[in-house]
Amino acid sequence: MRLSTIRTAGRTAAARQDGDELVLLPYADVGALLASGDDWLARAAAVDGERVPLAAASLAPVIPYPNKIICLGLNYASHIKEMGRPTPRFPTLFAKYDGALIGARDEIRAPAVSDELDWEAELGVVIGRSGRDVPTDRALDHVAGYTVVNDVTARDWQHRTREFLSGKTFEATTPVGPALVTADELPAGGSGLTISCAVDGHTMQKSTTADLLFDVADIIAYVSVIITLRPGDLICTGTPGGVGAGRDPKVFLRPGQELVTVVEGVGELRNLVATDGV
Amino acid sequence: MRLSTIRTAGRTAAARQDGDELVLLPYADVGALLASGDDWLARAAAVDGERVPLAAASLAPVIPYPNKIICLGLNYASHIKEMGRPTPRFPTLFAKYDGALIGARDEIRAPAVSDELDWEAELGVVIGRSGRDVPTDRALDHVAGYTVVNDVTARDWQHRTREFLSGKTFEATTPVGPALVTADELPAGGSGLTISCAVDGHTMQKSTTADLLFDVADIIAYVSVIITLRPGDLICTGTPGGVGAGRDPKVFLRPGQELVTVVEGVGELRNLVATDGV
Repeated sequence: MRLSTIRTAGRTAAARQDGDELVLLPYADVGALLASGDDWLARAAAVDGERVPLAAASLAPVIPYPNKIICLGLNYASHIKEMGRPTPRFPTLFAKYDGALIGARDEIRAPAVSDELDWEAELGVVIGRSGRDVPTDRALDHVAGYTVVNDVTARDWQHRTREFLSGKTFEATTPVGPALVTADELPAGGSGLTISCAVDGHTMQKSTTADLLFDVADIIAYVSVIITLRPGDLICTGTPGGVGAGRDPKVFLRPGQELVTVVEGVGELRNLVATDGV
Repeated sequence: MRLSTIRTAGRTAAARQDGDELVLLPYADVGALLASGDDWLARAAAVDGERVPLAAASLAPVIPYPNKIICLGLNYASHIKEMGRPTPRFPTLFAKYDGALIGARDEIRAPAVSDELDWEAELGVVIGRSGRDVPTDRALDHVAGYTVVNDVTARDWQHRTREFLSGKTFEATTPVGPALVTADELPAGGSGLTISCAVDGHTMQKSTTADLLFDVADIIAYVSVIITLRPGDLICTGTPGGVGAGRDPKVFLRPGQELVTVVEGVGELRNLVATDGV
């Protein structure tokens, strides 16, 4: 099943894809559906409601208000190498705030204060069931499904201090979508999927989610030692090599460019870069 | 005015302190009150409701579900020195998740997986009015008031990777309260207040909020360049010198100890350290 959050009549609604239509579900967004009880999948499948054409839908972030946005740094060998970092023993975790999230077709608001806006194609994981201290061999039971994220990053702000957050959470910079694809439709752990990113048609990143250093089950087990995972939590699993800051010479996003991010079998983000606040 | 969030009859409610009583307000918590409109202060002052004795109240985190918890690292010269870091040019920002928050009298759940749980007394700032790109000279207009935070930190997990988050957001470790003291009752920017922290009666930190490297107005202006501040956002302004990891030999919290955190004129946190998950 493919679930999206769409903007309709001044509000948002969760919706189930049915061919080239979306069936509106009685939940404000996919996060609210997931939080509505462990039988969310059966209810999402059973409900019939108003139908809108998929092609005309305005896509909001799949989960507009996650309780937690949990991001991984340095989680593909190719990206660790290009950033000049040693292979980590533990997952590098950082957060972003939900004000950074945008929909799969929205404009990325390039901050006027940054000259180094960069791309980071990522597999997104959405939690479907709460858990603390989840063992690795049961971790995937907590996954609702997968989505596509581009963890667009202002490198200059990321490196102003030791902490990544400042460069990772600029308003309206992180596309998430177009859909949550439920776990039953994909390989276990979302593994072995081609992930890629292109700027104005030029492929910049191309890898496979099989190369994740800490895989989805590892991440869930690790994070849940720290804090309870909740339905709708969004995990951004890290990016492979090929970011702009890792190139020689470095290249960064410019207003007017189109950023396309694809995870095989999950979906495609297509976002124009626009200048924020001008 | 002093506003708290209390647990009552299986739910929480915002409450206004009136002498030795609390007057319940028709909002689920202080965050919901702040989000209810810019005239929240007048409404909070005017409402009369059920009264409960202050001494018997079960205090929840003042803002249980902030949209953002924005934390500052390295923001007092004395702490920068003890951590062996250079004086920063920019505020060091990191996040924590709301699952880390506890009330002013709750037990701190010391993670069984950490041997280095440390204290960090902090002045907390609560946002009362939305804002983006807020100029420094108007930044304090966006403050609802001040509270007390102890940014209790698992140092071993904080330093597992470059990013602080893992050691900063363990479940039920960060007391916030006992009240939001509205800005009109305190010096501008919450400046010049004595801040201290004691473990089993031994003073470990004692400083003044006048020593903040980036003051409250600076922080609000800086963060709002990145992302829109919203009512109920909680800013933890950083800790002065005297943390356990900065001592020789290092000392850390142990189950059974009592951590008392005070900001002059704002309030006192009094939290017993208990072991989590055992």
